[in-house]
Amino acid sequence: MINSPPVDQPVIPWLDNGRPREECGVFAIHGNQDAAALSALGLHALQHRGQEAAGIVSFDGHHFHPHRDLGQVGDIFGDPSVIERLKGEAAIGHVRYSTSGDPALRNVQPLYADFHFGGLALAHNGNLTNARTLRQELVSRGALFQSTSDTEVFQHLIATSAGGRLIDRFTDALSQVEGAYSLVALSRRKVIAARDPLGVRPLSLGRLGSSWIVTSESCAFDIIGADFVRDVDPGEVIVIDDNGLESIKPLPKMKQRFCIFEYVYFARPDSLIEDRNVYEVRKRIGAELARESHIAADMVIPVPDSGVPAAIGYAGEVGLPFELGLIRNHYVGRTFIEPRDEIRHLGVKLKHNANREQLMGKRVVMVDDSIVRGTTAKKIVEMVRQAGAKEVHLRISSPPTTQSCFYGIDTPERRELLAAQHDVEGMRALVGADSLAFVSVDGLYKAVCGAARDKASPQFCDACFTDEYPTSLTDLADGTEKSQLSLLAEIGRR
Amino acid sequence: MINSPPVDQPVIPWLDNGRPREECGVFAIHGNQDAAALSALGLHALQHRGQEAAGIVSFDGHHFHPHRDLGQVGDIFGDPSVIERLKGEAAIGHVRYSTSGDPALRNVQPLYADFHFGGLALAHNGNLTNARTLRQELVSRGALFQSTSDTEVFQHLIATSAGGRLIDRFTDALSQVEGAYSLVALSRRKVIAARDPLGVRPLSLGRLGSSWIVTSESCAFDIIGADFVRDVDPGEVIVIDDNGLESIKPLPKMKQRFCIFEYVYFARPDSLIEDRNVYEVRKRIGAELARESHIAADMVIPVPDSGVPAAIGYAGEVGLPFELGLIRNHYVGRTFIEPRDEIRHLGVKLKHNANREQLMGKRVVMVDDSIVRGTTAKKIVEMVRQAGAKEVHLRISSPPTTQSCFYGIDTPERRELLAAQHDVEGMRALVGADSLAFVSVDGLYKAVCGAARDKASPQFCDACFTDEYPTSLTDLADGTEKSQLSLLAEIGRR
Amino acid sequence: MINSPPVDQPVIPWLDNGRPREECGVFAIHGNQDAAALSALGLHALQHRGQEAAGIVSFDGHHFHPHRDLGQVGDIFGDPSVIERLKGEAAIGHVRYSTSGDPALRNVQPLYADFHFGGLALAHNGNLTNARTLRQELVSRGALFQSTSDTEVFQHLIATSAGGRLIDRFTDALSQVEGAYSLVALSRRKVIAARDPLGVRPLSLGRLGSSWIVTSESCAFDIIGADFVRDVDPGEVIVIDDNGLESIKPLPKMKQRFCIFEYVYFARPDSLIEDRNVYEVRKRIGAELARESHIAADMVIPVPDSGVPAAIGYAGEVGLPFELGLIRNHYVGRTFIEPRDEIRHLGVKLKHNANREQLMGKRVVMVDDSIVRGTTAKKIVEMVRQAGAKEVHLRISSPPTTQSCFYGIDTPERRELLAAQHDVEGMRALVGADSLAFVSVDGLYKAVCGAARDKASPQFCDACFTDEYPTSLTDLADGTEKSQLSLLAEIGRR
Amino acid sequence: MINSPPVDQPVIPWLDNGRPREECGVFAIHGNQDAAALSALGLHALQHRGQEAAGIVSFDGHHFHPHRDLGQVGDIFGDPSVIERLKGEAAIGHVRYSTSGDPALRNVQPLYADFHFGGLALAHNGNLTNARTLRQELVSRGALFQSTSDTEVFQHLIATSAGGRLIDRFTDALSQVEGAYSLVALSRRKVIAARDPLGVRPLSLGRLGSSWIVTSESCAFDIIGADFVRDVDPGEVIVIDDNGLESIKPLPKMKQRFCIFEYVYFARPDSLIEDRNVYEVRKRIGAELARESHIAADMVIPVPDSGVPAAIGYAGEVGLPFELGLIRNHYVGRTFIEPRDEIRHLGVKLKHNANREQLMGKRVVMVDDSIVRGTTAKKIVEMVRQAGAKEVHLRISSPPTTQSCFYGIDTPERRELLAAQHDVEGMRALVGADSLAFVSVDGLYKAVCGAARDKASPQFCDACFTDEYPTSLTDLADGTEKSQLSLLAEIGRR
Repeated sequence: MINSPPVDQPVIPWLDNGRPREECGVFAIHGNQDAAALSALGLHALQHRGQEAAGIVSFDGHHFHPHRDLGQVGDIFGDPSVIERLKGEAAIGHVRYSTSGDPALRNVQPLYADFHFGGLALAHNGNLTNARTLRQELVSRGALFQSTSDTEVFQHLIATSAGGRLIDRFTDALSQVEGAYSLVALSRRKVIAARDPLGVRPLSLGRLGSSWIVTSESCAFDIIGADFVRDVDPGEVIVIDDNGLESIKPLPKMKQRFCIFEYVYFARPDSLIEDRNVYEVRKRIGAELARESHIAADMVIPVPDSGVPAAIGYAGEVGLPFELGLIRNHYVGRTFIEPRDEIRHLGVKLKHNANREQLMGKRVVMVDDSIVRGTTAKKIVEMVRQAGAKEVHLRISSPPTTQSCFYGIDTPERRELLAAQHDVEGMRALVGADSLAFVSVDGLYKAVCGAARDKASPQFCDACFTDEYPTSLTDLADGTEKSQLSLLAEIGRR
Repeated sequence: MINSPPVDQPVIPWLDNGRPREECGVFAIHGNQDAAALSALGLHALQHRGQEAAGIVSFDGHHFHPHRDLGQVGDIFGDPSVIERLKGEAAIGHVRYSTSGDPALRNVQPLYADFHFGGLALAHNGNLTNARTLRQELVSRGALFQSTSDTEVFQHLIATSAGGRLIDRFTDALSQVEGAYSLVALSRRKVIAARDPLGVRPLSLGRLGSSWIVTSESCAFDIIGADFVRDVDPGEVIVIDDNGLESIKPLPKMKQRFCIFEYVYFARPDSLIEDRNVYEVRKRIGAELARESHIAADMVIPVPDSGVPAAIGYAGEVGLPFELGLIRNHYVGRTFIEPRDEIRHLGVKLKHNANREQLMGKRVVMVDDSIVRGTTAKKIVEMVRQAGAKEVHLRISSPPTTQSCFYGIDTPERRELLAAQHDVEGMRALVGADSLAFVSVDGLYKAVCGAARDKASPQFCDACFTDEYPTSLTDLADGTEKSQLSLLAEIGRR
Repeated sequence: MINSPPVDQPVIPWLDNGRPREECGVFAIHGNQDAAALSALGLHALQHRGQEAAGIVSFDGHHFHPHRDLGQVGDIFGDPSVIERLKGEAAIGHVRYSTSGDPALRNVQPLYADFHFGGLALAHNGNLTNARTLRQELVSRGALFQSTSDTEVFQHLIATSAGGRLIDRFTDALSQVEGAYSLVALSRRKVIAARDPLGVRPLSLGRLGSSWIVTSESCAFDIIGADFVRDVDPGEVIVIDDNGLESIKPLPKMKQRFCIFEYVYFARPDSLIEDRNVYEVRKRIGAELARESHIAADMVIPVPDSGVPAAIGYAGEVGLPFELGLIRNHYVGRTFIEPRDEIRHLGVKLKHNANREQLMGKRVVMVDDSIVRGTTAKKIVEMVRQAGAKEVHLRISSPPTTQSCFYGIDTPERRELLAAQHDVEGMRALVGADSLAFVSVDGLYKAVCGAARDKASPQFCDACFTDEYPTSLTDLADGTEKSQLSLLAEIGRR
Repeated sequence: MINSPPVDQPVIPWLDNGRPREECGVFAIHGNQDAAALSALGLHALQHRGQEAAGIVSFDGHHFHPHRDLGQVGDIFGDPSVIERLKGEAAIGHVRYSTSGDPALRNVQPLYADFHFGGLALAHNGNLTNARTLRQELVSRGALFQSTSDTEVFQHLIATSAGGRLIDRFTDALSQVEGAYSLVALSRRKVIAARDPLGVRPLSLGRLGSSWIVTSESCAFDIIGADFVRDVDPGEVIVIDDNGLESIKPLPKMKQRFCIFEYVYFARPDSLIEDRNVYEVRKRIGAELARESHIAADMVIPVPDSGVPAAIGYAGEVGLPFELGLIRNHYVGRTFIEPRDEIRHLGVKLKHNANREQLMGKRVVMVDDSIVRGTTAKKIVEMVRQAGAKEVHLRISSPPTTQSCFYGIDTPERRELLAAQHDVEGMRALVGADSLAFVSVDGLYKAVCGAARDKASPQFCDACFTDEYPTSLTDLADGTEKSQLSLLAEIGRR
């Protein structure tokens, strides 16, 4: 009996710090003799979107040159000899945190394959909601999968497409996938970029001299002195070759549903996304939060670093001093001591310390961007209180996170989400704050786009707060939500 | 002709980011079964005082157990098996940035040696101003030096002392050295700590249950939940063993001259040093700076992260908004790309990016803590201006740094210091700011201790601003300031 | 123009020591709780068949566990924690030297893939002569290749087979390939082994308690105390599962053509192959060589270690002393000094040294197993002569190697082979020997099997000596002998 | 109570393969622009004298350049950039296996120190028998020891000598030490070499063009094409500088007592030591062994590789065939699998395999060079018997090893030596041979020097067989044979 189905071995994606983690950033450049060096710099600017692994593939007119590894961009691409080997005037790059796909090296993007028409490297940010379904169909037709990454589904769809030209095969593949993706590809002749029809993940077009660049966030233009040109449109496919840039829109036109959580937490504050400066949006959310839920206090403190802009906005709105009541230690190595039980509770202090003399006897409004499981919030509230704060009022610059994301953000399963299990008062009691408030969904919308949520046709993807997913969730339909994609139990680097 | 003198091969200590670097932090604990684990946590909290290397030596009643390596604390001591091997209830630890001593592993502290009376491990923060003179005397009497560290001078002075008891040899050694030191030692029976008679470097005493702890800054108590007891007095020697703590003061009593630059830049903002909260002091310096030199502007921005407290103080004093006009990238690997000349100027953007939408068209007051060579200041001013700022007014929360430090801070030689070569207007022109101002020496003193500088008997060591060094500089007297201590050209780790 | 063909970039397979290198060894075991540990030991015994990389895949009833790396078996599998992670009672393993396929990690076997029917791991020794042709067909039908290894062709043939049961798909795949292979596979239920219809590469069946083992050479049974049962027949497929062992012979029956060079050089002397002890065969070849070409001399010396058995046979036949005239240094690291030109010629002495006092003034018969490019032979002859030998008579225990191997042995291209360019006298002059003789083809046959070569139907594959290849060489037919299989220029480990 | 003595923590020096291990080899060269490259090649030829670590120090006229590491020469010095950094025309090098001194990196030679008169690097082969006594005196006078190596004792004796010139201090130091040493040193002007007055360890002088070379064995001349000039005399000090070579003999003249075990086992067979070719000596020992103890048999087999020359000599003497009955696997990684108990007994087969078809039904004489603990001998006898040998007669080409060596060979303590606990018949029973014989002491002498042992004044050091040590054993006199030299429990590399 060979044909028995795989044994399900669910792997629960624990988050190590109780905070949603962005999964990926992409970068592509065409027509520049420093293609790989500029890609590495761009990926460095996108490091906040994925710290687990990074890769670049360049093409020199004859060969594709890949370099991929686990680790941070500066460590992987800091050696000049690595950059020198990545020859060519076109390159694509990727930083990642694993959402789908195990952490093994074979999943590190960009992925490369030899096709009938030549080689193609692919990298994407996002998550397909019908990837497993498509994969099962492809395997049943004889396709061999080497990774557990969604990107390989794209590869097989391209390989098995009946289309003639690469671009026909490419759009054929796009037409079959559901979900969120901002994708870049490198063939022997072209750099191709594509964004899903809802435009859930960011993707921007820029220019450095005569070179075109496509990347996840505008901060990657700034680091190399490139100019921001415009966002890539939802459903747009951009093809860049020696003849210049061509834009096609082969997919059905839909109203955009950009991920509102990019504004709350993920994007870098200095990025310009959909014509909005992220830092400015966060200050407005903080101000809105203050208008909705302020309470008498002596000072406003952020949970550093992500809570800083909203705390500045909050403090400005209510005229209270903004103070550094928590000091962050930036030197946290990858792993750390697991001491005996008696001292294990010290762990949270590895990252933050309360500034005792500031907090002693004070009523404190503490601003953070979100509560996921609530464990970190509980520890920080306790730390601030132990440092002598008289009152601790926790304010959150997003609505309660009650749902998992299926579009590329590594949230826990629903049952792990504090807000899925408790109302606000219940959460307040659990984290031990004197009061707790979240910004409202409408308040968040107003801060972001100046208007309340359009219930009939929401302006953003806010499924994690509202349970209204903008696409069908095909892979969930068969009830095997967490089935393992591969029987291969690959641990570590190879 | 064997006896020819060594050929001088000066090695100029370039700073990689144009900012003075603290050199060391120390930690010692006695009477705790988690001595090594707590030492590692304490060193982690002191990581800002030295990121190049770290070490711990423990004693288990029979053997000394050392572990030292280049790198950060979390990487060196993150493996539980490392902590397990560091057995014993007493330990001392050290983080360092090299001031004297090359970066090779043999210089990583604590240093250990077998003496006639048993083993002794030593670690210190500071710098001796007669180390080379002492070393030459010791070598001429047959002493063999294996490192180029000042700490080895202490070892030889102890080894060759005529004293009987360890503590007699120890104080004999202290009586021969000049300069600044906060020192911890571990013998088979005792933990010993000592601070130089001027108390230039910080050293504090704390308590965790029945265990005594001595460490550089109080933030190392916070991370392990220990209580701050008091600062160690200048010239005090503390001896801790199973009978408890004994304090002796074998050295001549002198008026304290604590390093005022610890308040400006080096110490962690959440530390309590000489009864002052560092963050609060920095805000006061920022406010004083505003009172002395404010100019009409639209916002106040810090150079993150070190300029943040002074910028908050400045903004509060003048009632302008405090904004994040520069975003810091925390993911800088140890090395990075050295791209071709055409794109090398991008280097500075690896660490910071200007928040373009915030700065466009604005008059900006930018607050930083110091100007050393001026190269970083020049690049950041240019970056802010290119992001669209209409005016850039640079404000520095310390007086002009005109002199090198010989007490343990890794400053460049005088000729490298911008303020040693130019007046304020000259510096302004070089960094390209619309205006430039430094806080005055008296303003700094007032912000720190509430009184102007006592010219007859200054309250602090401020030699880097005033050229008034509180000790003689013996090693400089012979005119061979930069002579190499060893003929051994050791590069890298071994 | 996307569809342009890949640019050919021939990579000439230089041999680093002028000696043909065996490419691979395989090992498979079923029904033993120490499956991975025994596989590692077996691979260690097969290390002479491939020193570049090794891998094991085990199956524990639920998951496949792989571990593969570049390096030697003892280094890769010496850590007990590695073996512990390779759970399960069935495993296959592989050692390799790259023939086809670049040295990158992604080519290290066993290869694994998820199929419609479950997972399958594959490893093989040998080389397919129609691999590129098959690969091109598969790619044109949408198959994605991730490696440049022949083994992946097997995977795709299995994946795209119309067969129902795994074994049907497996034999379907076998029926499409040409060339030499000794192959092992591991599915969720079975261990499968197969040998090509000509039986070119060795493959043996053994038993340890109730466990079945299939491996390349019998020395891998000895190391784990297993019993040799029999050789696997040419064209035989063996299927082992919990129900026991089943033998099927799905391929057309052909007369065996075992590689005669395995006897001359590749196999370990203590292995029993096709019922012959390799050491004994080699002594007989040496004796035959003596009968054919002896010359007056004082002693017989081997080129260690591979020339030792033939030299013993030669010396015994002619009654001359067998002496160690060349001493081998076994401590050759992976790379070594590339000194300046003036001392580069010393390189050959890294591995051997002439025993001067033995050789001085003597007439020496020196026995080696083969001459490939002749560079090493030239240097050793020169070394022996410089050590004082009066005459150096080189005797080779194989016929002149005039052709490349396409069945899994890493020989240079024809134009690199000394015997393809020169007659025996020409070769003698080039290597500088006083006389040179090779064993004749018939002499070799007699030593191996007791009969001269059957010209109509040779008993062995001897194509490297005779140019009579026992299969068609499909991939050569299109004239692009060395075209690169992938555009991906992957260098090093990832 | 600080002054308590160190706690004794004996560390028993287990041998991993039951065979005595040589400890060290030295190399020195003066006046060659490829000094470091030639040193690395020389050390490679000496690798058999120490596989644990290696180091080179060069001097370029201004600085000393060291490179030392754990591992083999080819791995440590194979990277050309390493050699390039070792600038200069004079260098000394060292390979080691630890006898005294723990395996930590700080013990790897050459050791370097800055002295009053300049720098000096030192490396030696041998062992001092009064090192601990000297060390204790030095420590009591204030000397600081950083390693546990004998070499550091030399350094301190030089540093504290009252002598004026380096050479005076050097000979002053030599006059204080007892034991065996072959020593090389590198100062700013000179290369110095010295051999102890008994000449226990080998040391030879050679010449390459105009460069002088001093090294442990002549095989290190051969690898670089240098000429052997002569052995360094016992008690001779050789000083080489730009003015040429000077020989002085400052020590009392004594009759030479060269280590006879160098001939039996340690030296390389191709070395010429004291005018004797080691391979030739070993064959003569084998012949002598045959004359003393031959028994009817079918073949003679060596335990490879060390037993090969004696087995050839034995077989030649009795006219029996010499056969490879045991095959050695040369690919043993540094560590290997520790499998479950059930398969642990397989361990010995990692290194050797019995050649079953050769041995089946045969009466075998098996020749090895020595029996230390007997565990390996027992396993190999068992392996040969299990392979079918009818009789196994073990012949040993040295007398029974009943005593430890204190002159630099890493033998176990007496109680671990099989011959110290059992007579020959007892040993035979334990190893399971049908007969066992050792060459006699007189037979060994005759084979080596053509005369029986001069009982009144033996021609060699043979203390390991006879208990007659040629020097006093000062360190043993105080009864603390194995006391630990340092309280520092340093494990591993740092």
